[in-house]
Amino acid sequence: MSSTRRPLDFFFFIGSTYTYLSVMRIEAAAAAAGVELRWRPFFLREILLEQDNSPFIGKPAKMRYMWRDLERRATRHGVEFAGVPPYPVDPDGLANRLACLACREDWGPGFVRETYRSWFLEHTVPGEETETRRALARLGKAPEPTIARANSQENRDRLAAETQVARELGLFGSPTFAVGPEIFWGDDRLEEAIAWTD
Amino acid sequence: MSSTRRPLDFFFFIGSTYTYLSVMRIEAAAAAAGVELRWRPFFLREILLEQDNSPFIGKPAKMRYMWRDLERRATRHGVEFAGVPPYPVDPDGLANRLACLACREDWGPGFVRETYRSWFLEHTVPGEETETRRALARLGKAPEPTIARANSQENRDRLAAETQVARELGLFGSPTFAVGPEIFWGDDRLEEAIAWTD
Repeated sequence: MSSTRRPLDFFFFIGSTYTYLSVMRIEAAAAAAGVELRWRPFFLREILLEQDNSPFIGKPAKMRYMWRDLERRATRHGVEFAGVPPYPVDPDGLANRLACLACREDWGPGFVRETYRSWFLEHTVPGEETETRRALARLGKAPEPTIARANSQENRDRLAAETQVARELGLFGSPTFAVGPEIFWGDDRLEEAIAWTD
Repeated sequence: MSSTRRPLDFFFFIGSTYTYLSVMRIEAAAAAAGVELRWRPFFLREILLEQDNSPFIGKPAKMRYMWRDLERRATRHGVEFAGVPPYPVDPDGLANRLACLACREDWGPGFVRETYRSWFLEHTVPGEETETRRALARLGKAPEPTIARANSQENRDRLAAETQVARELGLFGSPTFAVGPEIFWGDDRLEEAIAWTD
């Protein structure tokens, strides 16, 4: 557990499918390596649109493979998988704005894990209002004022600023792990990224 | 070394970048596991066009990342990397037609390795005619009659038939490893695919 390791930035977007695996296993993996982990939500959808990059929508063969591969990878990592969940999700970006707010406070990882758990295991839709209020209540957060804070201009600006950081780092997908300027795309690069912090 | 292992189908397209890593390491990996390996070139470009899937062209951030990731992966596997080679390549499909011909005979892996070695380490362009003739000569093949056989209707039909097999399996990228109907996309899934043969 060396204190000289560099921190690991976990850039993610709620709506990315493979990010489920990272959300479920990154805390244990980082802790085992003694790495400081920073949860950094960004609004990937905006970057994908700019880059004309549609990873799955309109690509049924690739989409079918992705779900099968995700299931196999979940099995490999001991992460529960309950069949194909709704996709795409968070149409208005509320779940990502809440993640941005939560990660500036002390309930970020808990909110993101709860959102992914509910999405993948109960097949709820992240960002859908009724379910979002329920999820916030389960985390002990008063739903209405919390949603109002997530929708504030200040919080929107903060998410836009983080998206700009991601853009300048060259990100084009989620999850992406960054160690300084070195980036690693995909849950299957998590171990490589952690090794890079050393 | 069990004789009950299922064979591993190595579907590939000359022009795919990550396929370089698989071409250089798959024989040793399959042999170590006692797996029968079948080299199966297909014309991925046609499938990508059908699927409106342009993995790198027009996506500079993703392209930059791909080269950097490929370099890191090459280092990891002890595969030589000599900087970014020309891309895209094989505009007319000649290198892939030759691979199709060679894989029906006994010089397939040798031709594909030589083509990738020359592309990645000497920065030649697969399919470019002068260089292709030189590569065939190095392999002891008379260039003109071999190119004529590669361009024959029979060989074109064979490559189209293999492309159709790939399409029906749900392929959308190279390399893809298949164990019966189970497919694994990407050089980074090679070990997982080999394990699946057991």
